[in-house]
Amino acid sequence: MKKIILAPDSFKGTMGSMEICAIMRESIRKHYPRAEIIAIPIADGGEGSVDCFLQAMGGSREAATVRNPFGEDMRSFYGLLGDGRTAVVEMAACAGLPLVENRKDPLRATTYGVGELILAAARGGVKKIIVGLGGSATNDGGCGAACAAGVRFENSLGESFIPAGGTLKDIARIDTAGLDPILNGIEIVTMCDIDNPMIGPRGASYVFGPQKGATPVQADALEEGVIHLSEVIRRDLSMDLANVPGAGAAGAMGAGMLAFWGARLQMGIDTVLDAVCFDDMLKSADLVITGEGRIDGQTLSGKAVVGVARRARGAGIPVIAIVGDIGDGVEPVYAEGVSSIISINRAAVDFSLARLRSRKDLALTVDNLMRFYRSMEK
Amino acid sequence: MKKIILAPDSFKGTMGSMEICAIMRESIRKHYPRAEIIAIPIADGGEGSVDCFLQAMGGSREAATVRNPFGEDMRSFYGLLGDGRTAVVEMAACAGLPLVENRKDPLRATTYGVGELILAAARGGVKKIIVGLGGSATNDGGCGAACAAGVRFENSLGESFIPAGGTLKDIARIDTAGLDPILNGIEIVTMCDIDNPMIGPRGASYVFGPQKGATPVQADALEEGVIHLSEVIRRDLSMDLANVPGAGAAGAMGAGMLAFWGARLQMGIDTVLDAVCFDDMLKSADLVITGEGRIDGQTLSGKAVVGVARRARGAGIPVIAIVGDIGDGVEPVYAEGVSSIISINRAAVDFSLARLRSRKDLALTVDNLMRFYRSMEK
Repeated sequence: MKKIILAPDSFKGTMGSMEICAIMRESIRKHYPRAEIIAIPIADGGEGSVDCFLQAMGGSREAATVRNPFGEDMRSFYGLLGDGRTAVVEMAACAGLPLVENRKDPLRATTYGVGELILAAARGGVKKIIVGLGGSATNDGGCGAACAAGVRFENSLGESFIPAGGTLKDIARIDTAGLDPILNGIEIVTMCDIDNPMIGPRGASYVFGPQKGATPVQADALEEGVIHLSEVIRRDLSMDLANVPGAGAAGAMGAGMLAFWGARLQMGIDTVLDAVCFDDMLKSADLVITGEGRIDGQTLSGKAVVGVARRARGAGIPVIAIVGDIGDGVEPVYAEGVSSIISINRAAVDFSLARLRSRKDLALTVDNLMRFYRSMEK
Repeated sequence: MKKIILAPDSFKGTMGSMEICAIMRESIRKHYPRAEIIAIPIADGGEGSVDCFLQAMGGSREAATVRNPFGEDMRSFYGLLGDGRTAVVEMAACAGLPLVENRKDPLRATTYGVGELILAAARGGVKKIIVGLGGSATNDGGCGAACAAGVRFENSLGESFIPAGGTLKDIARIDTAGLDPILNGIEIVTMCDIDNPMIGPRGASYVFGPQKGATPVQADALEEGVIHLSEVIRRDLSMDLANVPGAGAAGAMGAGMLAFWGARLQMGIDTVLDAVCFDDMLKSADLVITGEGRIDGQTLSGKAVVGVARRARGAGIPVIAIVGDIGDGVEPVYAEGVSSIISINRAAVDFSLARLRSRKDLALTVDNLMRFYRSMEK
């Protein structure tokens, strides 16, 4: 019996990775009705990440009441995975931009609820918590989440408060002594697919502040706050995070995860592949199908494809990358272990037209691949 | 050692079939340096057909002095193929549109030289002559060529003459008794990839007359001449060709080949595959790569691909079709024996851009295919 692993990233702007897996599976089933098809939709930490993990590993969506970006109670969730020892929290589930709609306010928005979700997961007895960053409405450097876990932020009067984007500048002292001991012994991994630093022109406030509603003047204020936070963290926690790649992710939540939770930042693809024990899975596989919206010779695209291929190469399993566009200079991708790169583009039409037919084109491309694969088996 | 057969048609508007074979071969060589690669560039009967056959089967280009479209002597050629028993004549070599440039005149242009080329080939001792139709400047129903071989056309005064497009209406009687006996026992196959009849709105004069320089009034005159020719052929030779598909090809040269030379009309793809003994070739092949500029579910596209696939299916050899665009409803093509259809489109861009990169895209597509093929062998 064939064993085929699907591990595609989303095609940004056209299809999510769960939908891609479903389309691929259907096309494969037509040719191999009895194949073992394992779907691992690759998550990037943003909205939908919990569902991706649940699809790949089974498990349940656990409900929890936590604070929304404005400190009001809301029903949120995290994922308790099928291995019984791993939970997944996506910060978008209680601090996401869609939750604030027409009252965007990165000066006020808090990640407090994210901390509550992590604690809820910890109380469930897991040994590992994956925290997905992305899609946030906040710029609080993760201070809100840290408060929820017992970290104390004091102002110059020695008063405790919950810092938000607009009040980071008021932090006079940070004390992590009160961190909830339930977190002891729990590994926290933070998924983060961008490498922006906390501060500076490529930092959280200037790059992502505007999409969260910050005016230019407010972005300056946010930047001032994050700079101040980085200085207090350096002084009180002896950590220099200002230039750490990814620390600027999700309104500098990346920095907060490093500083307050002892987390490590990891690319989404590696986080997912580790969680599903991809290396073990490969042992009996016949074929791996991965994919992305675009692949080229540059570093920042093809992350999922290359991540999958590197592991499969070690196991000697063929890897097919099904992609939207194939850019220039993809030869290095082959060297990473990709056997073949197939574009779903079937006709010479512009992307404005191509995106409308992407689902059908993907289905037909996988159908065609399976026909080829079958013909090679003979 | 791998044996790979290349049998692509041209990609109309971008690349000829010989060039496609060369690009494919180079990409394959990178992965299989010692493979036996047999290139069969598919000819359609038009300009370049002789060279296609020579590339596929070896042989030589033989020079001959014959009449050009205006009856003047010119140096032309035919192909004597490597099997020593087959010759190929392309009518474009002495009756082609590029030869008349700015003196297009379908009322006067003659196929006389084509007849001379066929006779020259016959005198070389071959057993089979392939005559490629296409790209002609003429509308003489093949009467010029027939004259060269000894067919007698008389006017109402009983005088012999060489009918051209404008004088077909003057034919009062046709006598084939004087046909050169050197043609006895020689099989003549006419390559013809269109199915237009001699006369009517889809006939030679109205569909192709204008591109040969006919004004609307002249097209009426040409149509009148071809109608008259069809009537005389029916009366004197007992053949009703008016509605035969393909008889209208190349200024009704198709009709002339049927009426005066005992030829049969055949699709280019079948003519080529028969000539190269494709069925024998398949016996030890590992893979066949074919292709066309566009493939879809309609009858008239994908002719070469389907022609190749039908034969390979019988032999159980995988067939990969590499194409420009994949249209809708291609499923029937798989049923004909195509294992896989791969578009060279690697990015969602319009054809105006895609055509500029077609050579590079083709090379990369075949390169990618070979990587896949190799990974499947492991």
